[in-house]
Amino acid sequence: MTGRNRQIRLASRPDGIPQADNFAMIEDDVPEAADGELLVRNLYLSVEPAMRGWIVDKGNYSAPVAIGEVMRSLAVGCVEQTNVDGFEKGALLLGWFGWQEWAAATPDKVIRRIRETDLSPSLALGVLGLNGVTASLGLDRIGRPRPGETVLVSTAAGAVGSAVGQLARLQGCRTIGIAGGPDKVAACLSDFGYDAAIDYRSEDVDAALAHLAPRGVDVYFDNTAGSISDAALKHLAIGARVVVCGTAAIARWDPPPTGPRVERHILTKRARMEGFVIFDHMDAFDPTAARLAELVRDGRLRFREEMEEGIESCPGAIAKLYLGANKGKLIIRLGQ
Amino acid sequence: MTGRNRQIRLASRPDGIPQADNFAMIEDDVPEAADGELLVRNLYLSVEPAMRGWIVDKGNYSAPVAIGEVMRSLAVGCVEQTNVDGFEKGALLLGWFGWQEWAAATPDKVIRRIRETDLSPSLALGVLGLNGVTASLGLDRIGRPRPGETVLVSTAAGAVGSAVGQLARLQGCRTIGIAGGPDKVAACLSDFGYDAAIDYRSEDVDAALAHLAPRGVDVYFDNTAGSISDAALKHLAIGARVVVCGTAAIARWDPPPTGPRVERHILTKRARMEGFVIFDHMDAFDPTAARLAELVRDGRLRFREEMEEGIESCPGAIAKLYLGANKGKLIIRLGQ
Repeated sequence: MTGRNRQIRLASRPDGIPQADNFAMIEDDVPEAADGELLVRNLYLSVEPAMRGWIVDKGNYSAPVAIGEVMRSLAVGCVEQTNVDGFEKGALLLGWFGWQEWAAATPDKVIRRIRETDLSPSLALGVLGLNGVTASLGLDRIGRPRPGETVLVSTAAGAVGSAVGQLARLQGCRTIGIAGGPDKVAACLSDFGYDAAIDYRSEDVDAALAHLAPRGVDVYFDNTAGSISDAALKHLAIGARVVVCGTAAIARWDPPPTGPRVERHILTKRARMEGFVIFDHMDAFDPTAARLAELVRDGRLRFREEMEEGIESCPGAIAKLYLGANKGKLIIRLGQ
Repeated sequence: MTGRNRQIRLASRPDGIPQADNFAMIEDDVPEAADGELLVRNLYLSVEPAMRGWIVDKGNYSAPVAIGEVMRSLAVGCVEQTNVDGFEKGALLLGWFGWQEWAAATPDKVIRRIRETDLSPSLALGVLGLNGVTASLGLDRIGRPRPGETVLVSTAAGAVGSAVGQLARLQGCRTIGIAGGPDKVAACLSDFGYDAAIDYRSEDVDAALAHLAPRGVDVYFDNTAGSISDAALKHLAIGARVVVCGTAAIARWDPPPTGPRVERHILTKRARMEGFVIFDHMDAFDPTAARLAELVRDGRLRFREEMEEGIESCPGAIAKLYLGANKGKLIIRLGQ
């Protein structure tokens, strides 16, 4: 196919939070689909907090993106050429198509056929994608909430956290959100149905939890680590489960930052703290996304999206996420 | 019953490791067994690392021993008077009879009838008691080792750790022990069958684990917390389980000590860290002790005991334990 393909490639490894100048925009020809490949035109590109981990050179759960490589990203794309049985032209796919306008991809890069034609395809990058499915499976498989229990969520208004809070409430739990700033706290209460919300920027999280959860927290869904978790761990109930899903509050892990030791909380509360990485659970992705789509249609699962326009917005987008300046799942819409 | 009953009572709360002067010896009359009570003559008293937690005034898993109260302790005793159906004179019991020579006790203080008349009753305080049963159930219920996995144990020559190492090896695991000093390392290798042992006093635990467990540690049975755990957590395998059973290396938790944050290890390794307190599992105590007795008889489960003579030895015994000066389960034998 003729035309140009703009790509965002990793130019250097960040020291801390990735910044725009860690990436470079390159123009290349639009590729052809080889035998066994699809040519996909990307419509929406994702921006994830986890991208920070994907581009450090060690200590993460996946092989790092190489310098000079197109930035690893989920994208929603439309099949424009197909040399793969079962994928027809025009099909909408969620897959690992990268921060680029066009991708020649083998079928193993495809995560899911988007069948929800009544909903915006962009939802496949958020509430029906990695974020929503992470929330649902992390909560069910590690958090295991029971009706009447208290579920605490950090980054409670974020793409993962907002879904955790709503799903826990649908399961009959009392939900407490922790978020930064009055707008996000308001979103927790009005949009996402939390029973209570704590502004970690203006409130003492420890004191607030003592007041809001006098019998302790049964499930803590942790997207931040850091001082928010330090406070949360002091309020675990006996037999609590801590879902370690993200570490957004820690800017760098090398050298390892220090904090209050957790062992005594874990021992005396007989608590369980366990890491959740969605890529271990991809077998359950499609049915979970389909189930979440039902909840979205019924209005029982709400979400917020924030769109940036054009591939030029990619390089600075991760830093924006970590500043907490976005109001909802950050998505790059390509104007093709 | 006439006669005198010497008791060790808590005199003051320790600042850090309990010392002899935190206790006082009192002489009282030998009590009578009231209706519904047994009069028990104690033969052996236990000394546990966990006693430190039982006498701090907050943040532990059980109500603290009150100032002036007889020190809480497991003991092996012989029934001398009985006003309880089902307990005959002469029966040997493991129970919460305290640091004293005689106890009037209700049946809810009894943990187990000691039926292993071919073995020393003192074993009910160690390998067939709290220590052995903790090792077995903590390993099975949280560690869940599979044949061929690598199991790492801290305080590997101790009363709990030595049983963990042997039980893991009986289940087909490769075992690595961490202990302090050449004598304990030698005991790990010669007495307790570890495949390898690390002396944390003279070796770099991090470097030793890189060498001994290049594919990572699948189960870490942690009795210490502190710098040993900091090194161990760097070597977890994907899907590792950490049994948090004790925190012997931390002298005080108030104010909370700091250490390297654990969240990133837990997340990237999808590891589980979970607290184990035997008192949640007392339903399984008797059958587990009986099963361990079979292993002791067969010579497949070895143990070491160190006896101190007389109740006068109790007050300084916890401090001795934390110095690591004992060679085996520390037990006070009463010379009656």
